[in-house]
Amino acid sequence: MVIVMKENCPKRQVGEVLAVIRQYDLNPRIISPAPRVIVGVVEDLDKKLFDQLTRAVSEMEGVDAVEMFGTSWKLVSRSFRPERTTINVAGQVIGGREQAVIAGPCAVESLENILEIAASVKEAGATFLRGGAFKPRTSPYSFRGLGEEGLKYLAEASRLTGLPVVTEVITRRDLPLVAEYAGILQIGARNMQNFALLEAVGELDKPVLLKRGLMATVKELLLSAEYILAKGNSQVILCERGIRTFEKETRNTLDISAVPLLKQLSHLPVIVDPSHAVGKRELVPAVALAAIAAGADGLMIEVHPDPDYALSDGRQSMTLEAFRDLMRLVGSVREAVCDAYNSGGVLCP
Amino acid sequence: MVIVMKENCPKRQVGEVLAVIRQYDLNPRIISPAPRVIVGVVEDLDKKLFDQLTRAVSEMEGVDAVEMFGTSWKLVSRSFRPERTTINVAGQVIGGREQAVIAGPCAVESLENILEIAASVKEAGATFLRGGAFKPRTSPYSFRGLGEEGLKYLAEASRLTGLPVVTEVITRRDLPLVAEYAGILQIGARNMQNFALLEAVGELDKPVLLKRGLMATVKELLLSAEYILAKGNSQVILCERGIRTFEKETRNTLDISAVPLLKQLSHLPVIVDPSHAVGKRELVPAVALAAIAAGADGLMIEVHPDPDYALSDGRQSMTLEAFRDLMRLVGSVREAVCDAYNSGGVLCP
Amino acid sequence: MVIVMKENCPKRQVGEVLAVIRQYDLNPRIISPAPRVIVGVVEDLDKKLFDQLTRAVSEMEGVDAVEMFGTSWKLVSRSFRPERTTINVAGQVIGGREQAVIAGPCAVESLENILEIAASVKEAGATFLRGGAFKPRTSPYSFRGLGEEGLKYLAEASRLTGLPVVTEVITRRDLPLVAEYAGILQIGARNMQNFALLEAVGELDKPVLLKRGLMATVKELLLSAEYILAKGNSQVILCERGIRTFEKETRNTLDISAVPLLKQLSHLPVIVDPSHAVGKRELVPAVALAAIAAGADGLMIEVHPDPDYALSDGRQSMTLEAFRDLMRLVGSVREAVCDAYNSGGVLCP
Amino acid sequence: MVIVMKENCPKRQVGEVLAVIRQYDLNPRIISPAPRVIVGVVEDLDKKLFDQLTRAVSEMEGVDAVEMFGTSWKLVSRSFRPERTTINVAGQVIGGREQAVIAGPCAVESLENILEIAASVKEAGATFLRGGAFKPRTSPYSFRGLGEEGLKYLAEASRLTGLPVVTEVITRRDLPLVAEYAGILQIGARNMQNFALLEAVGELDKPVLLKRGLMATVKELLLSAEYILAKGNSQVILCERGIRTFEKETRNTLDISAVPLLKQLSHLPVIVDPSHAVGKRELVPAVALAAIAAGADGLMIEVHPDPDYALSDGRQSMTLEAFRDLMRLVGSVREAVCDAYNSGGVLCP
Repeated sequence: MVIVMKENCPKRQVGEVLAVIRQYDLNPRIISPAPRVIVGVVEDLDKKLFDQLTRAVSEMEGVDAVEMFGTSWKLVSRSFRPERTTINVAGQVIGGREQAVIAGPCAVESLENILEIAASVKEAGATFLRGGAFKPRTSPYSFRGLGEEGLKYLAEASRLTGLPVVTEVITRRDLPLVAEYAGILQIGARNMQNFALLEAVGELDKPVLLKRGLMATVKELLLSAEYILAKGNSQVILCERGIRTFEKETRNTLDISAVPLLKQLSHLPVIVDPSHAVGKRELVPAVALAAIAAGADGLMIEVHPDPDYALSDGRQSMTLEAFRDLMRLVGSVREAVCDAYNSGGVLCP
Repeated sequence: MVIVMKENCPKRQVGEVLAVIRQYDLNPRIISPAPRVIVGVVEDLDKKLFDQLTRAVSEMEGVDAVEMFGTSWKLVSRSFRPERTTINVAGQVIGGREQAVIAGPCAVESLENILEIAASVKEAGATFLRGGAFKPRTSPYSFRGLGEEGLKYLAEASRLTGLPVVTEVITRRDLPLVAEYAGILQIGARNMQNFALLEAVGELDKPVLLKRGLMATVKELLLSAEYILAKGNSQVILCERGIRTFEKETRNTLDISAVPLLKQLSHLPVIVDPSHAVGKRELVPAVALAAIAAGADGLMIEVHPDPDYALSDGRQSMTLEAFRDLMRLVGSVREAVCDAYNSGGVLCP
Repeated sequence: MVIVMKENCPKRQVGEVLAVIRQYDLNPRIISPAPRVIVGVVEDLDKKLFDQLTRAVSEMEGVDAVEMFGTSWKLVSRSFRPERTTINVAGQVIGGREQAVIAGPCAVESLENILEIAASVKEAGATFLRGGAFKPRTSPYSFRGLGEEGLKYLAEASRLTGLPVVTEVITRRDLPLVAEYAGILQIGARNMQNFALLEAVGELDKPVLLKRGLMATVKELLLSAEYILAKGNSQVILCERGIRTFEKETRNTLDISAVPLLKQLSHLPVIVDPSHAVGKRELVPAVALAAIAAGADGLMIEVHPDPDYALSDGRQSMTLEAFRDLMRLVGSVREAVCDAYNSGGVLCP
Repeated sequence: MVIVMKENCPKRQVGEVLAVIRQYDLNPRIISPAPRVIVGVVEDLDKKLFDQLTRAVSEMEGVDAVEMFGTSWKLVSRSFRPERTTINVAGQVIGGREQAVIAGPCAVESLENILEIAASVKEAGATFLRGGAFKPRTSPYSFRGLGEEGLKYLAEASRLTGLPVVTEVITRRDLPLVAEYAGILQIGARNMQNFALLEAVGELDKPVLLKRGLMATVKELLLSAEYILAKGNSQVILCERGIRTFEKETRNTLDISAVPLLKQLSHLPVIVDPSHAVGKRELVPAVALAAIAAGADGLMIEVHPDPDYALSDGRQSMTLEAFRDLMRLVGSVREAVCDAYNSGGVLCP
């Protein structure tokens, strides 16, 4: 809900509108400053409460107009755009009939290593190549990736296999460089609320894979996506990758219900990263299949030819053989559910 | 790991063993009291640490023997019983090739109501009938179920449809009564650590469905199951039903990776209750399919002919029509994964 | 809010009332069954929403009366009883001007051990003696306490020192035995929603210390207390002891703001158990002082003469010397804030 | 623990070292790349495990040296710098005998508004003025602060009162501008792992207030501080401001035990922001006193002359009167505990 104030109305009148809204236990916010203040109410209001609030506010001094916009986000919403968004990168589609599969190592380690992995995952059925060249690390003393050299290796692997590259950008300063090499720019979980970076990728004409933060709600993920769309870039893929909970047997807890929930609320494609979610390679296949069955448009999976010797995240990387076996099952499960997710029936709230 | 002390060894010697173990940041516990004290170390120890600790402890005064038992649970463990447990109730199997589906209302409301639901869910493919006659309620002023009358209605519905009844028992006092009517006794999430109740059902010869507590770890769930098996009843079904997290768009957060994790650690069958996990009926189907794809042996789903008028949990109950549609999809997904879960391949860590 | 239906009104009319209430995204519940159904709405309603809902419901068929009762609990509420409850056990007061301090070992280990501890903590300023004779344990193989023997040791320690005993009861069956020895009956965190046990202690004339569950919200704690008061026992002490979160450096996370929140909502006294909350003895003193500064009426602290050799919870038990030092500081902090908490000023919302 | 490899040793040898370390269930990381690889093990190792691992690794091919550095952070650690850090900004000290109090509005709204607040909080005893000019906002449509104009208003308020300014910087691009006006640069919770921003403030000679992320562990907070110190800026103040949990009665859950824990692990000063932690102004005073009693070096509190009409965070802002009352109590509690926190006794683990 949006309340548009009259131009140059006294600040006190704005304050009075805020105070009235707060009486309903709502949390109004200033969407647009003076001289023409706009007040937003981003909580979901049912019809009754909306009518009641409209009555209460519309007669107040200084109020020019009251409008419904339903939810706190707009451009990402299915009410704004009923048809589903599909994203096409060099012929590979995310959000279409076939699942997208982004596979590769956590970090690019060497040219030989990435070439071997790229060839293998392509053969197994992957449609995109992942690999980190710039890595955000909790400790300042950890390996932070090969930088531009890593990007060049990814480019070479992409040239040889035809798989577009998905790689992370962690600062606005690196963005022009990374964007030159990436088919899809990844915004990592730690940067989900780095609003300056979101706006910067929003100004490009390049798909963005936005990962959910460890402690971010589904609504916060959508609001972060809204930052990108609001700058003009509507090619955003949402990625569920596990949230932080009390359970410590797995690295994080994959929020599987976020998949249908995001698809109910938004037209954007949704993929799942089971590797970071569970953190143990032997659990990745079952969770990957669950994601597809829940309606995810694709998967992002860490694969390494020799995981125990990987420079990063070895514990959660699948072997090439296991990945190949998994891909066959992914196809069968997708087959079993795909029509139902497109038919408008019980799977399409 | 278990350290057996000599009979009647001085208490101080036990204390010294405890102190040494604590130096490894482990939390030893007295498994068995004097005169023959047994000290247990329930944390998982890798081979190296086990050897090191064995060396440190085995020469100490008062120590008689040091033995590995691997994990803090024993009877529920796959190392104890490699083959999977299947549970057969009047011809309906849980843990076998076909998925089990337990469906019905949250609370039994009336005879007509339960008869209508039972007939419908059976026709749609359910294999068990659920319904609460004794309901644990957060507030003392809420409807707590019809009690024995509700059990009788369930029995009548079961007689007419052939579906065995799954119903909750909430106190030891009610146990004989509930056990008379139930095919499977349900222990609810709030009672997962009601150890007296666990031991009481452990003394019966009747299958038990044990729900994971809202804030219980996977290991704690297994330890609670161990209470039941330790009393002699090995017919236990584990049920993941969502854990409490910061995300509030769904009632709870279904921990989908608990399914393969439980099956990796234990031989007991595992089912999933998507209704309580998500709390919104339109999200139940996608999450139910995810559970099957993740290898769950079955589902527990709330169904009501007229959910908006249900006396309890209406928001999360599916209509009979939606349930029927879902059942068809459940079969297809099960078909797609069932062999792979039984073949010893990538889905069977 | 409470909607009283007409006697023997048709079930359909009740259903229609439920459906209307649900349109406001509220979750109505049946407080009292037919023939005279009472529907409760336990969510907090502001004045406006209450009026609106009253209008919507009061003209409906079958509705006899609509009444406000403000919150989902009644007897524990400050609106129900504005003056604070104080509890007096053999001259020791909880909820008065002086802080109450319950100290002792996790588990009673032997007569000598408990006598030594009791004498020391009394000298240091403790006002109650704690000690577990019946211990709930996550694993069936852990030491579960000395049982009645432990109770007798506690009684002897109490006789010699004059400190009333606080000890846990874990089943309804043990209740008569434990009640014979205990000055205050403790309901542990795992049993906070063992409603049968709550009702059983609610029927006694004996103070109850109710610990917040690991997974319980503040509102759920108050609703569990309401179970006890609803049966006639109003001598309830609420105990915050840490909740389960993602942070693993401490055993749990003490929710310090629960102290002023509980005192704002309820007239019952509130104490804090820093030992179980933090799980590391060196952090207990700072957190204990924080609890007093936040307005807690007392503390529950684990103390052991030789914590590294304790049979249970040694890591979090303070030494007798450290406890003595802490007691002096507790007195100073209490002195600094006590008047302000009783004056009706900024600390008394 | 740090393993230094020989220069130009083959990559396979590094891999073998990683594999051996992983057998202890540790997570090794590459601290420094080829040609002279350094492998770090950041988990805490007790003496025994350290010795064992040293033996296992030191004879391996390619290993040059094995060194202990104790923890994953170094510069922030108390073992690295035993004496406590104090920070002096224009005569106001954080980490000294007196508590520091940073008070002011969430967002700077106008010149008059900030002048009024600054004068009042100074009179009440605040030692720093806070106020947001650049605000990170979850929604792209919310008010994001007055920008440079807001900084100028803060500067004017500071000039008139003598209170140094604490204000947030949200991007590296704004840093030079914000640093010109700020006495202390605040890094907000959402940016705690914006490593590029941390390194940028690490290169300045200006104190930094680092807020704990909503989802960050205590160890992660320390590692983020390490990023700043590693760049040469050792004037860092740590700020606990509540973590995200399942409890929704308060905005977040203040982790009070983080205060003594941070002071045990690090020499850096620690302050607490009760306003963001609890989100309800009536609970702020009790929690503020708790923080002081737990040993915090100061407080950060939101104050507004007319909170219900505040443009941002009105629900949690205290009135000027309430703040004045609180300050008196803060002084009394500090008085009661200050000596004990400096004496090396029970409060100083």
